[in-house]
Amino acid sequence: MIPPEAKQQLAALLGPRGCLDRPEDLMLYEYDGSVDKGRPELVVFPRSTEEVAGIVKITAAHGIPLVARGAGTGLSGGAIPIEGGVVVAFTRMNHMLSLEPENERAVVEPGVANLDVTLAVQGRKYFFAPDPSSQRACTIGGNVAENASGPHTLAYGVTGNHVLGLEAVLADGTVITTGGEEADLAGYDLTGLLTGSEGTLALVTKVVLRLLRQPEAVKTILAIYDSAEDAGRTVTEITARAITPVALEMMDGVMLRMVEEATHAGYPMDAEAVLLIELEGLKEAIEEQAQQVCEVCQACRAREVRLARSAEERELLWKGRKNAFGAVGRVSPFYYVQDGVVPRTQIAPTLRLIQEVSRKYGLAISNIFHAGDGNMHPLILFDARRPGDLDKARAAAEEILRHCIEAGGTITGEHGVGMEKIGLMPLLFDADTLETFARFKALFDPAGLLNPGKVLPAAEA
Amino acid sequence: MIPPEAKQQLAALLGPRGCLDRPEDLMLYEYDGSVDKGRPELVVFPRSTEEVAGIVKITAAHGIPLVARGAGTGLSGGAIPIEGGVVVAFTRMNHMLSLEPENERAVVEPGVANLDVTLAVQGRKYFFAPDPSSQRACTIGGNVAENASGPHTLAYGVTGNHVLGLEAVLADGTVITTGGEEADLAGYDLTGLLTGSEGTLALVTKVVLRLLRQPEAVKTILAIYDSAEDAGRTVTEITARAITPVALEMMDGVMLRMVEEATHAGYPMDAEAVLLIELEGLKEAIEEQAQQVCEVCQACRAREVRLARSAEERELLWKGRKNAFGAVGRVSPFYYVQDGVVPRTQIAPTLRLIQEVSRKYGLAISNIFHAGDGNMHPLILFDARRPGDLDKARAAAEEILRHCIEAGGTITGEHGVGMEKIGLMPLLFDADTLETFARFKALFDPAGLLNPGKVLPAAEA
Repeated sequence: MIPPEAKQQLAALLGPRGCLDRPEDLMLYEYDGSVDKGRPELVVFPRSTEEVAGIVKITAAHGIPLVARGAGTGLSGGAIPIEGGVVVAFTRMNHMLSLEPENERAVVEPGVANLDVTLAVQGRKYFFAPDPSSQRACTIGGNVAENASGPHTLAYGVTGNHVLGLEAVLADGTVITTGGEEADLAGYDLTGLLTGSEGTLALVTKVVLRLLRQPEAVKTILAIYDSAEDAGRTVTEITARAITPVALEMMDGVMLRMVEEATHAGYPMDAEAVLLIELEGLKEAIEEQAQQVCEVCQACRAREVRLARSAEERELLWKGRKNAFGAVGRVSPFYYVQDGVVPRTQIAPTLRLIQEVSRKYGLAISNIFHAGDGNMHPLILFDARRPGDLDKARAAAEEILRHCIEAGGTITGEHGVGMEKIGLMPLLFDADTLETFARFKALFDPAGLLNPGKVLPAAEA
Repeated sequence: MIPPEAKQQLAALLGPRGCLDRPEDLMLYEYDGSVDKGRPELVVFPRSTEEVAGIVKITAAHGIPLVARGAGTGLSGGAIPIEGGVVVAFTRMNHMLSLEPENERAVVEPGVANLDVTLAVQGRKYFFAPDPSSQRACTIGGNVAENASGPHTLAYGVTGNHVLGLEAVLADGTVITTGGEEADLAGYDLTGLLTGSEGTLALVTKVVLRLLRQPEAVKTILAIYDSAEDAGRTVTEITARAITPVALEMMDGVMLRMVEEATHAGYPMDAEAVLLIELEGLKEAIEEQAQQVCEVCQACRAREVRLARSAEERELLWKGRKNAFGAVGRVSPFYYVQDGVVPRTQIAPTLRLIQEVSRKYGLAISNIFHAGDGNMHPLILFDARRPGDLDKARAAAEEILRHCIEAGGTITGEHGVGMEKIGLMPLLFDADTLETFARFKALFDPAGLLNPGKVLPAAEA
């Protein structure tokens, strides 16, 4: 329970419109994009680093847990206040403080939406590379917290590869600045440590982003298959030819049909897999590569290969992929998306394992994933209103993730550990490493008030 | 002083040939490639992680400082045992444990020489990207400690971008494993934190490296100028055309003449600057880009532009650059190489400032640097046998580095902070950030025995 005195102090700091505590308002902050939930007791809306530091000092003095929240689009429960307390919503810290594309950088507040950065600099032919599916809504702060990524991770890497520096408020209200504008900085790499730490070590209040120059040309190819194995072989074969697409996405037949019914993107209803392949670079190089990719698809028995000839055609090919999650929502009231990673060579066996898990639990599982990275996104469809269904979905998910670890992979490609996968951490890390994590947590947050219950399994927290 | 009991324990652990303590042997370990020195009391040569853990436990029990050492090629004094104690030489931990180019990774011991990784996989058309000038000798462990890089940093980034995971021994002898084979790992990013920490937090005993596929084609261009300003303009102009060379190196007239006299690489003796520009990628794209780069050089008044037509011609163009430091050694018995970074747009003003500093202190300063990154390497020539010369060199270096910070840059591009630049850290970081660094150091190494006197300025250590 938040003591009235703390509420008064926060209201005095932020003004009456800077705090929400009515039950009907708090309800909106108990979910994110995952299947977990937890209701905060208060939601606050700081406008500046100073206000964030002030909030942290007040909550620390009263021993109140604190959870940072961007747009709430996260898929692993990172922004859910498991232990109640205060949610710090960064909605009002949404300013771009400086845009310097000629020096390949921008400084933004954490509440800026991911896509808005690219929109602000695209006229000068620059862009911000990480592109989660939620990029219209999700915030830079959330991207940093979860080390998020998207289809173009294959070529450009995760958020951490595009963050040059941070300003952050520590658990005692101290403001620190990490990193800067160069690649190899003096001192310890606090920027890297805070990126992906899910708000358990500090609250990020400013982000220095790396901007990239737009490629000269883009080619997008859609290949349609009667067999998922053939699509899998295509992925290996493209790699073997030393071609690195910027995106290499795969959807299976189950997903494909749901997507087509929702979006009318023009996918055939009877296919078993499609690959969406994007190439970027200099015009001449890309023409040549696109031709090679089409040849590979045909040699691997694609039944049809489409090459986008215009920006509109390209949009159409991506339309199905970008709206896939919405399409699933049309069909199934609930779904549980997983984020396991396997070595590329293990994609086909993993797809077979997922089919077996689907049969075992009697739940439909559709697959849409970053094939080039081996980052699988099985979507487990279930109905939370049917008793036992959610438990079955969780059990199926865990079985798939255990397989990913055994196959030499890991439990998160881009969504983070959050609440959902915290129990699996001991499978990934030995006791001494988890103990080192716990010592970090204790160093930054001795009272355990920053996003409690995340990153560290309970035994270590 | 190391107590005799500790020496006996170490000799029992490592065998008589695993320890050196005769003065004539210790002398060889008091230098690295920097201008500082410090003599160890004992040098030990572990063969395994277990032996490293054993060494750490023994020295910790006796309160003896411990400094890790690779090939001793470092340029900032990172491997120098300022407080004496034990140097851990990784010479015998030089095995490649696994090479998996098809999965784009390799696992090696820290004593493996940088270039040997590339030599081991080049037959399968892969390479390890970071390429310090010392790459034939310098070790992977040293590269990780200093977050080293080289001419190809422009395209490929620093060592940290190519390290996927680490095994390390903590100050109490605990062995931890960080990272792994995927880009976005669950848990805190200890790999990033340890990379560049100069052996002050842990001793690295195993490194998982990322391997890259060789580009299809390489083109190398040498452009010769009568004015350094024109060369500087060329750098800006290439960037403006959205061409990213993999290397963009510059040498000034002073450097050029020393290099030509030593290597006979064919540089004209009366030029004021040369640019060495390398392009990599698909054959067609590179042909086109090379032509554009030649046009830019000519438009910026290069007096001659040479395009290598064969591997031999390419070797010849690089010969002068790769042997530049040796060439300087021929002319000046001592030199002090700096590693400041400035925004690309600040290169020309910084060159003018360096000329002024040269005149002010009466010391010749030659410049060779990674122009594409703005990573300057002024070499200050001096004679340590002449009283006061070393102090003048240090003062000149500090003046240059202060300018780099003021110009919006930093004090190290790739050599690390080491001993030499530790006094400048407070100019780069505010007190709260340095305090956070110190808390990290205390967390990992409460007794302050791991490479004391590095990374943290004295007031914070």
